[in-house]
Amino acid sequence: MAKQDKDLSRITPRAESYPDWYQDVIREGQLAEVAGIVKGCMVIKPHGYAIWEKIQRELDDRFKATGVQNAYFPLLIPESFIKREAEHVEGFSPELAVVTIAGGEQLEEPYVIRPTSETIIGHFFAQWIQSHRDLPMLINQWANVMRWEKRTRMFLRTGEFLWQEGHTAHSTHEEAVERVIQMLNVYADFAQDFMAMPVIRGRKSETEKFAGALASYTIEAMMQDGKALQSGTSHDLGQNFGKAFDVKFQSKEGQLDYVWQTSWGVSTRLVGGLVMSHSDDNGLVIPPKLAPIQAVIVPFFRKNEAENEQVREEGKKLQATLQAEGVAAVFDDKEGQPGPKFYHYERLGVPLRFGVGPRDIANRTAEFKRRDQAEKRSVSLDGLVQLAKDELAAMQRELFSAALARREANTVRLDTWDDFKGLFDADEGKFVFAHWDGTKETEAKVKAETGATIRCIPMEGQGFEAEPGECVVTGKPSAQRVIWAKAY
Amino acid sequence: MAKQDKDLSRITPRAESYPDWYQDVIREGQLAEVAGIVKGCMVIKPHGYAIWEKIQRELDDRFKATGVQNAYFPLLIPESFIKREAEHVEGFSPELAVVTIAGGEQLEEPYVIRPTSETIIGHFFAQWIQSHRDLPMLINQWANVMRWEKRTRMFLRTGEFLWQEGHTAHSTHEEAVERVIQMLNVYADFAQDFMAMPVIRGRKSETEKFAGALASYTIEAMMQDGKALQSGTSHDLGQNFGKAFDVKFQSKEGQLDYVWQTSWGVSTRLVGGLVMSHSDDNGLVIPPKLAPIQAVIVPFFRKNEAENEQVREEGKKLQATLQAEGVAAVFDDKEGQPGPKFYHYERLGVPLRFGVGPRDIANRTAEFKRRDQAEKRSVSLDGLVQLAKDELAAMQRELFSAALARREANTVRLDTWDDFKGLFDADEGKFVFAHWDGTKETEAKVKAETGATIRCIPMEGQGFEAEPGECVVTGKPSAQRVIWAKAY
Repeated sequence: MAKQDKDLSRITPRAESYPDWYQDVIREGQLAEVAGIVKGCMVIKPHGYAIWEKIQRELDDRFKATGVQNAYFPLLIPESFIKREAEHVEGFSPELAVVTIAGGEQLEEPYVIRPTSETIIGHFFAQWIQSHRDLPMLINQWANVMRWEKRTRMFLRTGEFLWQEGHTAHSTHEEAVERVIQMLNVYADFAQDFMAMPVIRGRKSETEKFAGALASYTIEAMMQDGKALQSGTSHDLGQNFGKAFDVKFQSKEGQLDYVWQTSWGVSTRLVGGLVMSHSDDNGLVIPPKLAPIQAVIVPFFRKNEAENEQVREEGKKLQATLQAEGVAAVFDDKEGQPGPKFYHYERLGVPLRFGVGPRDIANRTAEFKRRDQAEKRSVSLDGLVQLAKDELAAMQRELFSAALARREANTVRLDTWDDFKGLFDADEGKFVFAHWDGTKETEAKVKAETGATIRCIPMEGQGFEAEPGECVVTGKPSAQRVIWAKAY
Repeated sequence: MAKQDKDLSRITPRAESYPDWYQDVIREGQLAEVAGIVKGCMVIKPHGYAIWEKIQRELDDRFKATGVQNAYFPLLIPESFIKREAEHVEGFSPELAVVTIAGGEQLEEPYVIRPTSETIIGHFFAQWIQSHRDLPMLINQWANVMRWEKRTRMFLRTGEFLWQEGHTAHSTHEEAVERVIQMLNVYADFAQDFMAMPVIRGRKSETEKFAGALASYTIEAMMQDGKALQSGTSHDLGQNFGKAFDVKFQSKEGQLDYVWQTSWGVSTRLVGGLVMSHSDDNGLVIPPKLAPIQAVIVPFFRKNEAENEQVREEGKKLQATLQAEGVAAVFDDKEGQPGPKFYHYERLGVPLRFGVGPRDIANRTAEFKRRDQAEKRSVSLDGLVQLAKDELAAMQRELFSAALARREANTVRLDTWDDFKGLFDADEGKFVFAHWDGTKETEAKVKAETGATIRCIPMEGQGFEAEPGECVVTGKPSAQRVIWAKAY
């Protein structure tokens, strides 16, 4: 690789500019690029899409294990549908893309491109549900949606994005709330087990909840800069959409009632969360369970062709053995020096790298480096497959621990407004666990003065215990501390 | 099930009305329904979507095995892009859905919802490809597309549909053509091996080719009514889009040239092909390899609760054993009589059905019926798993043979215009293998007078050998016979 190319492909260090670092890592990791000609949209490149496919596959299995089935609803929604639920229209109207012409003719009623599908799915639920025997109805859709936002950032907030949206209908509020929490837990387990991304589960404040929900629940993760990323949400819709779309069922007792609905979603935003949880100044770091390539074997060729042939054979054999044991391995014997190859796979975030040359073959060794460790070391060729499996498991574990330790180190408990304001004036990157009087006004004041918002009112059992106290802003009574942070 | 419900859920016999039968089978098979409020669009219901997922999974594996990678490109395309390739704009303009308002503002340049993505992918190929070292570029996208058609029919032609579109770029025309044929063969093998749907591979005439291609290739299947369904296409785009989007590469010799491109796609239309290849007057028949449920076990409960408990245990055990052996099995012990359950699973097209009651347990037998056979029979409970596997394999094979035999019985070789015209006047349901002088004019005349079109110019090795002769219409020289038929 020429010096010139290297400069073009420089990754800005995090200390220099975190936002530039983020863009650079995505470019050098070949995840995506800004579409340019389509405002606020992006192209997801093969490496980024392969990560999304692994996310999809795993989540889809977990959804189905809870009885959810996939379906597909139209992209276009009659404009009038969006207006039927009062909070929903207020929340989404400013962001809609509208189709006014189709098949060469002006449409009598325009369609909007779905920003989310509660309304159109509500319309079909009304046709499909008559009796308690039709409930619960548990549907999910993998789809593209569009929200025309002013400020966009790759993966985190784009005009079009890919996601899944679950939509369920139930005969009681209690059962609906159970489903809301069940799916929140599916998201939390996936984020922690697969993405190695610790999350805090909690309820959103009224200000931050989904437009049209009774209550919204969220998983919130801390990025490396200490800001929060809302990574998945699960909504208790109550009977709001049931009433708006006349989704009624006859109960066991013969009475008509509106169904209780839920919706829940995660999106390609998770890929952004992945990048900002683990990557470093040398590029992407991907947790092994989500890495499209988990191990790469790079040959060291010398002058002796017979020896090189041995290296080639050993490399291919290793790759095949790793594959057979479930490790996604690549043997890169393309033309070129090992150095640029190392550089390439490092930027792609490949967890394990092995180098094998003629001398290694003679000694039955390989050079080994883990993406998240600085040092390389020599390992035995013969124990290599077991080593690979152990190191992948260890790396998955250690990435999680490192992210959790970072979150803990950057979470503080504050009790005075001076400390609170002082902290966010000095440092953007903290989670603050502090008392709140429960009012929108206090939340608005904090946001205006510090830029921080309530990320969630944490649920029990996560080390954020609920105890009463006094609001850090107003001194009024507070039922429990909440998590405050600046957010993406 | 009440008599009344049964009438509402009647399946029109094919002999009475083939189009009504098609709609009824889709409704009763719970595959999809017309969206109604979104013109020409449909909702794909869980059972239909589960079949589509099986199609996707299998095709995706086959694509990846040829080196293709998935990516994702924007839904919206600047309107001007569509106009850059002359034939492309002519072909697609009448069917476009246009976004003119977004984020509350009138757009300066409208966007169209992708009818297909050659143009926008051409734009990105131009940025990604500089040198012969960047080639071949092998990309696929699973996506929704929109073509605002006047006449729609579920799965076969809908405003929005789901599909995959492969897009590749090559340094030589020869290599591009190889890829075109390779993907056509992937489609043909999949259709025959998985869908049990025999297809004829061939080239499209100039009239029928893709708007913007040098040449289009197709797989054509005969539906049960003898009409043709174009089931997948693979296009040699030549340098047309390369020139329109300035996609140039530097060759090994250092010269700049436009890339040679291909595109290829199949869609949810395949589900319509599946329905019309195998189903009968009792509802869906699904080839085992694509069946979301491959076997159902229905318990016969009697008065003795202790015996019923034995039936329940045996049923669960059977289901678990079948699952463990890779057979997607359901044990339906929900409340209700066996009769309505049989009726339900028959309509869903579940390949194998087992009934087990207390007497069966005592005798170590089960009642067995295959969806595509009229008779039920008694089989041994202990050999049931092997029987299930054998019968699934046999059914897959026999559905293919039956479809092939039907096509052969309904394919005729004609040599005079009187015979040709007479046949299509009397009978819509035939493939006619007849000589053609190669002109658009003759093709247009035949279409105007009979409704038949050239489905394809068949490739070698399928039993449709190329031999010269005289055009059935004009008597002018013909290089080879072609397949004529009425089509969906």
